[in-house]
Amino acid sequence: MQVRRTEREAVFPPLWRYYSPYPLVTFQTEVDIPEQDEVFIHTEGPFQLLIDGAQIYGQPEAVTIEPGKHTISLKVYNQEFLPTIYIDGTYINSDESWIVTNEDKLWIDEKGKAQQSGTPWKSVGSWKFYSPDEKPSEFRLKTEPWTAKSTEPIGNGELVDFGKETFGYIRVHGLEGEGQLSLYYGESREEALDSVRCETLDYIQFDGNQSSTYTHDESKAYRYVQVQADPSIKYDSISMLYEYLPLDYRGEFNSSDKLLNEIWDVSAYTMHLTTREFFIDGIKRDRWIWSGDAYQSYLMNYYLFFDENSVERTLLALRGKEPVTAHINTIMDYSLYWFVGIYDYYLYTGDTSFIRKFYPRIKSLMEFVLGRRNEAGFLEPLEGDWVFIDWAEGLPKTGEVSFEQMLLARSLEAMAVSAEIAGETKDQKKYEELATELKKKLFDVFWDEEDQVMQHQRIDGEIQEMVTRYANMFGIFFNYFDEKQKQSVKEKVLLNDDILQITTPYMRFYELEALCAIGEQEYVLQEIRDYWGGMLDLGATSFWEKYDPSEEGADQLAMYGRPYGKSLCHAWGASPVYLFGKYYLGVQPTAPGYTGYEVRPSLGGLEWMEGKVPTPNGDIEVYIDQKEIKITGVEGKGKLIFKSRSKPGGVRNIKSIGNQEYEVEITPGKEQKISYKAL
Amino acid sequence: MQVRRTEREAVFPPLWRYYSPYPLVTFQTEVDIPEQDEVFIHTEGPFQLLIDGAQIYGQPEAVTIEPGKHTISLKVYNQEFLPTIYIDGTYINSDESWIVTNEDKLWIDEKGKAQQSGTPWKSVGSWKFYSPDEKPSEFRLKTEPWTAKSTEPIGNGELVDFGKETFGYIRVHGLEGEGQLSLYYGESREEALDSVRCETLDYIQFDGNQSSTYTHDESKAYRYVQVQADPSIKYDSISMLYEYLPLDYRGEFNSSDKLLNEIWDVSAYTMHLTTREFFIDGIKRDRWIWSGDAYQSYLMNYYLFFDENSVERTLLALRGKEPVTAHINTIMDYSLYWFVGIYDYYLYTGDTSFIRKFYPRIKSLMEFVLGRRNEAGFLEPLEGDWVFIDWAEGLPKTGEVSFEQMLLARSLEAMAVSAEIAGETKDQKKYEELATELKKKLFDVFWDEEDQVMQHQRIDGEIQEMVTRYANMFGIFFNYFDEKQKQSVKEKVLLNDDILQITTPYMRFYELEALCAIGEQEYVLQEIRDYWGGMLDLGATSFWEKYDPSEEGADQLAMYGRPYGKSLCHAWGASPVYLFGKYYLGVQPTAPGYTGYEVRPSLGGLEWMEGKVPTPNGDIEVYIDQKEIKITGVEGKGKLIFKSRSKPGGVRNIKSIGNQEYEVEITPGKEQKISYKAL
Repeated sequence: MQVRRTEREAVFPPLWRYYSPYPLVTFQTEVDIPEQDEVFIHTEGPFQLLIDGAQIYGQPEAVTIEPGKHTISLKVYNQEFLPTIYIDGTYINSDESWIVTNEDKLWIDEKGKAQQSGTPWKSVGSWKFYSPDEKPSEFRLKTEPWTAKSTEPIGNGELVDFGKETFGYIRVHGLEGEGQLSLYYGESREEALDSVRCETLDYIQFDGNQSSTYTHDESKAYRYVQVQADPSIKYDSISMLYEYLPLDYRGEFNSSDKLLNEIWDVSAYTMHLTTREFFIDGIKRDRWIWSGDAYQSYLMNYYLFFDENSVERTLLALRGKEPVTAHINTIMDYSLYWFVGIYDYYLYTGDTSFIRKFYPRIKSLMEFVLGRRNEAGFLEPLEGDWVFIDWAEGLPKTGEVSFEQMLLARSLEAMAVSAEIAGETKDQKKYEELATELKKKLFDVFWDEEDQVMQHQRIDGEIQEMVTRYANMFGIFFNYFDEKQKQSVKEKVLLNDDILQITTPYMRFYELEALCAIGEQEYVLQEIRDYWGGMLDLGATSFWEKYDPSEEGADQLAMYGRPYGKSLCHAWGASPVYLFGKYYLGVQPTAPGYTGYEVRPSLGGLEWMEGKVPTPNGDIEVYIDQKEIKITGVEGKGKLIFKSRSKPGGVRNIKSIGNQEYEVEITPGKEQKISYKAL
Repeated sequence: MQVRRTEREAVFPPLWRYYSPYPLVTFQTEVDIPEQDEVFIHTEGPFQLLIDGAQIYGQPEAVTIEPGKHTISLKVYNQEFLPTIYIDGTYINSDESWIVTNEDKLWIDEKGKAQQSGTPWKSVGSWKFYSPDEKPSEFRLKTEPWTAKSTEPIGNGELVDFGKETFGYIRVHGLEGEGQLSLYYGESREEALDSVRCETLDYIQFDGNQSSTYTHDESKAYRYVQVQADPSIKYDSISMLYEYLPLDYRGEFNSSDKLLNEIWDVSAYTMHLTTREFFIDGIKRDRWIWSGDAYQSYLMNYYLFFDENSVERTLLALRGKEPVTAHINTIMDYSLYWFVGIYDYYLYTGDTSFIRKFYPRIKSLMEFVLGRRNEAGFLEPLEGDWVFIDWAEGLPKTGEVSFEQMLLARSLEAMAVSAEIAGETKDQKKYEELATELKKKLFDVFWDEEDQVMQHQRIDGEIQEMVTRYANMFGIFFNYFDEKQKQSVKEKVLLNDDILQITTPYMRFYELEALCAIGEQEYVLQEIRDYWGGMLDLGATSFWEKYDPSEEGADQLAMYGRPYGKSLCHAWGASPVYLFGKYYLGVQPTAPGYTGYEVRPSLGGLEWMEGKVPTPNGDIEVYIDQKEIKITGVEGKGKLIFKSRSKPGGVRNIKSIGNQEYEVEITPGKEQKISYKAL
């Protein structure tokens, strides 16, 4: 999937390690059946079948299994695709109970007796293929036909506008003749019109024998397509097959501010476009899985789709196989976000099986990371390590950067939790100690006691006189600062325009989260209106990789030295989905899988606001205006926490917790109405 | 190649780890060209082309490179086959100077500037493909048509006999009609006739539209094929395409004993049949690469083909990719033979580049092995470890087996040499120390001072009262015993019929080598006549996996509880090729790549003997009878060493070295004739 990106007909595969599936996999199950079972066998790849250790000759389409206990093994070989099985009997079926290995360590002694030990069995991976005709290797996302919103003539051809950013396969209707059809795609009108510099294009050759409706075999990202046909080719019209991952928009947001509602809608659409086989960064560019980008998608997903499988798939795709030879995506911070993503996955979903199953890979990545610390115990880039942090002019990334150490500390905390879940008590203790030690060192070295801010960088033992937003904002929502420190950081860094500005929605995500975490909802709302509203003003129909309000005209489309290099549909642009759910509707888990949660609605100056936040146990519904809060909770210990100018009413057991703040225990599945008076 | 084995139409892939090639590979070269070059590009897999770091759009068939210095990179993606390139210009061509990586660690900054560091570049692998039409993925061994030697009717069908063991694709001539053709293969007549129990067969369906000459698409091992056609099918005759690796039989042996000459010929043919894409164990079964079997093939190869590439390919295929998760073929001894094979490769070929290039993988395998030692520092099987040693009834393989420790000691010596070649001085010292320490412990624990033999096994600290041949015979040709110890081992173990007998040509190899190494050439020659001659008496046309003279009739065909389970063409059956070259013609290197060598011809009771031994510098030719020795040497410091009853003559500078022994310096490329008198 990651090699489907093209640039002007050149393939553009990722810049990092790329793995094949294991080509030889043994699938095994133990059954105990009450009567004879006729079992149909389907595989992708030639197979060897063993029943109770004895080889069955040929590659039978079906086999009859006698009543009683049996061990059934299939060894499937496939060099090109993932080896898979589909087993279909009355009692015996391919399901999640099977185990697999790429290394069966079975041998046959001189007398033909099979022996086996030390086999690294894993539980099988499975997906929703409900018939043998649905081959995993042929898996594609769903599609639906979309028509063009408008067209206009361009030379002898035309410019087709689908009305908004989209993704899919171009279709040509009423096609006749022999020759070339040229498609120049554009996320912007400018790009589609610029046939010599647009980033993606297709030259399609027709021999005259094609059917009259042609669907292109590569899906692309675009809003506009310039179509130029050889004079020998005729067609009636252009449409497309929109390609998407079918997901429910479980999260919802609506408010008295139409601009914010539109921002939420466009964010959700941006998020949906980039939520595909995996969470990718952008749909035109790079169409790759980047851990830093994906980390934000995980969080947004918890407030929009709550699709656990997309998180699991993406985490696994990023991690790859053993051995670890480089940081994820070669980026130091991107390895670290991966661990934090594991922690959040557990917190939001409550699922422990993923961590238990993949703990060895979680640990080996951490051991790789720890092996790259310098003598001081800090991460400092070694050869081959890319320190990204953010796209920002003049941002120093060498030496010991406080931001990276802070991410490492959080990663070690995530490791301790993972080790606990995996039952690795020794590891848990080790990672807890490492986390504590590193957090202490982080403050000893980088915390400026005088200015009460976190310094950016130390080089060869010398603290550099520079303060940036990164470590300071993460320190807030990681809860590494005390109240006094938070206030200082807020004033001296977050709200200080002299500190290097953030120009990507990527880091805006964290910056605004930090401000929300210290109660600056009203200020943040205005920032959102300006920043995301600014993109809408420029015609955005999905949110961008980068937005600098000071840039003018077509400069807004350029990046990486290319006129249309910027991605106009980038997952990290969708953060309002997350912020609105977590910091305005105010819903977040306080215990794994929402077994505990709190709802702290915050109007941020709005007249009213309502919405839904998905959880493993259903959706939490929140309505709030100046006088009333309505809440419908889900299974789990939920608390509603809010401020009120006067004593609230409407339900029993409203507990005052001081400072004009009140707490209500949330009843699952039933709307509670609380009258109050907004501050 | 290892998944081509079938058993009655079931695929039968190997029992161990199986790897895919890296699916995404960057190829890179630096050039400095005097004039413009038009360069044609061919790849297996879609590619991305970068010239001087800038992406070239599309996937051009040719590109024009301007004069001067350039960096040319191609990133090729192929999930199914090995990604490959064929570059064809006047100045710029794909050759051994290119470098490759599976992990280019290249990134593009905000301004579009490419950066790269820490890339694990390796020198490229290449092979003899001389045109873009010769695709590596379509590589097949050479074939030539062979006709049947005889046929006889069997029911409505026939039994086709190709006269000797062979390997290839069955062809059907004059084919007509629609229906099934059944082929039952047999290494023996019995097997081919036994359609319900033969190990390999093919049911081929014809729809009536086939051409009149049909060549089957799977090659198999057989001497006999029983052909049964549906009545609706007619054909004229059956032939085959013999499939083989084209190699020169550089080694030669001829003598006054016709039986020995035949044994050498059949050994050489056995060796050739099993020398394919890799050195495999047997051509019917297992058609896999086993390290213990391959180790013997390496040695035989040095006395027959001297094909370095086959050794390299096989060593690499066995080693696989990182990480090491199991012993090679899951067998403890098979990991250890691999190291000794590396050492021998260097000794015979003198090539250091292979070791330098793959030292990291050599080392990581050794670290895996060392990590599996017990507290006493000995190898003892852990879960998943198979201790093979040999097929022999009642051979204990648990606990600490002296044989495995001896192989480990030799492996550590090989590691020290490899580390030295790779320039890893610290490693060299470490492995030297480990080897010395282990050899001392080996004798402290297993050497029976009273009986002067090596004990077989210790369990839970208790030496078991058992002596076997294995460690005792390896101790001789590893030169771990002093003269007194050797004599004791010879009498009490090697020539003692009460010690558990060896019934495989596999261990006969080492047993006879040990006897030769202590001068028992005459005794060994009689053993060869009896043992290998015994197989010929039973009609062998290639040598077997196992031969027990006491078995009768069809029992000779059975193994692993299956009537035709035994492989009748097994590489380890071919050891006379090695023994005759090394211990009778007496040629062996004493310094890497035959920069030093000695020739100690030994008639072993024969009237005369002559032959050739290949070296990297040409063939050494030896003739010897009772009165004369003729020797033609090659570049390198060669010494002829022989015994004579009287003072020899014929050349100058014959040096007496005492004990009726004489030494002559060998002149390269010129025949020297020495008159002497055999003892």
